[in-house]
Amino acid sequence: MTDALTDLAVEPQDPPAYFRAHVFVCCNRRPDGHRRGSCAARGSEALRDYMKVRAKELGLGGIRINQAGCLDRCEFGPALVIYPEGVWYSPQTREDVDAILQAHLVEGGRARQLMLTEHDVPPPKG
Amino acid sequence: MTDALTDLAVEPQDPPAYFRAHVFVCCNRRPDGHRRGSCAARGSEALRDYMKVRAKELGLGGIRINQAGCLDRCEFGPALVIYPEGVWYSPQTREDVDAILQAHLVEGGRARQLMLTEHDVPPPKG
Repeated sequence: MTDALTDLAVEPQDPPAYFRAHVFVCCNRRPDGHRRGSCAARGSEALRDYMKVRAKELGLGGIRINQAGCLDRCEFGPALVIYPEGVWYSPQTREDVDAILQAHLVEGGRARQLMLTEHDVPPPKG
Repeated sequence: MTDALTDLAVEPQDPPAYFRAHVFVCCNRRPDGHRRGSCAARGSEALRDYMKVRAKELGLGGIRINQAGCLDRCEFGPALVIYPEGVWYSPQTREDVDAILQAHLVEGGRARQLMLTEHDVPPPKG
């Protein structure tokens, strides 16, 4: 999804990062039976709630977990993305959320088996 | 808001960026009269709608504009943040949105007069 326009980058005079990690959990809900489905229909709201509670219990500082509108990777949801790294995950269960919290936000690594990749793209519209 | 935990960073084996720029516009709404106010009460929803329309009209590729839950900078809203740079803005008008689109997303620079800084932090809870 990147293109040849100007590459964006942090500039030296930018303020410091406001959050160390900013997590956005897609909580978009489409009507039942929609061909793409939706992250909320796949259970994302409960996983978001659980992630917020667990992050607080773990005492993770500088981290914000937000819901977001449709991130447009519906077919691979529940989808979440962690910035500034721009790493995407698809947790299906609370255990998956625990694995992401531990591997990514506590240890600064990756829960690779739960990551979305550049191959996880929606089919063309139409 | 950063702390001394493990610094997060892009890893070489991470997938390429899925979006060139991912914009999150706070659309949280609190009840009228809440001491912190809220971005929706400050007009963020209409500005988000306008931003989506204008970004499409400008033909900006690889960009996603999403609504988000409370970004916790309510006092300085309407708040939006653009990742992966992590640059925050507070647009008050459509003209401000135009300035952000042009300076940041078209030209790859900054609309500095509209940016939030590290000094724009909410007062302590209590």
